Amino acid sequence: MTMFKVKSKVWVELDEGQVMGEGKYRILEEVNRWGSINKAAKNLGISYRKAWSWINSMESRLNLKLVDRQKGGRNGGKAVLTKEAEELMGRYKELVMGFNELIDKRFRKVFK
Amino acid sequence: MTMFKVKSKVWVELDEGQVMGEGKYRILEEVNRWGSINKAAKNLGISYRKAWSWINSMESRLNLKLVDRQKGGRNGGKAVLTKEAEELMGRYKELVMGFNELIDKRFRKVFK
Repeated sequence: MTMFKVKSKVWVELDEGQVMGEGKYRILEEVNRWGSINKAAKNLGISYRKAWSWINSMESRLNLKLVDRQKGGRNGGKAVLTKEAEELMGRYKELVMGFNELIDKRFRKVFK
Repeated sequence: MTMFKVKSKVWVELDEGQVMGEGKYRILEEVNRWGSINKAAKNLGISYRKAWSWINSMESRLNLKLVDRQKGGRNGGKAVLTKEAEELMGRYKELVMGFNELIDKRFRKVFK
């Protein structure tokens, strides 16, 4: 029984659908890192279209702006997280904190 | 922020794919309860075909028999869990024990 792997997911929903999970968190994190949805998408190996649509669906479900798309400038504008995005990310991070470690520890005890 | 809901999933994989998760656990549990894949499927609101294919995929990924399909008898045979199925279910149950409660508690703290 040594080849088993454990996987887990924690996400947050509204009636309208998922508004935060690991994938969505990482998109926002990468947008914050690069200041660009395009670079964030490239770094995650997904299309710009997909990244944009994920962000858009979060925003529309939450009825909140999460990414401020600033136009213009030498590099064609910058994407900046709003305070609301930072707050949501902080809550999600607190929600899942230590959670993977706990599951891994339990898994090693139970499955090995 | 009162309409948020938290969801989580924990599952166990082999390279071949998922071999145990909440849905698969419930199918085996219902098979055990009714002694019948057909009744288990009905009770879960899924087709017999789907229940059978889930069980089959688990068995083939694990290379283990999980459900013993006994032929004959007045009601056309009985489906019985093998010892291996019971062991796997026991491990999964131990893996996820208290896990939903933990996430719910954390969620109430962080999101409410």
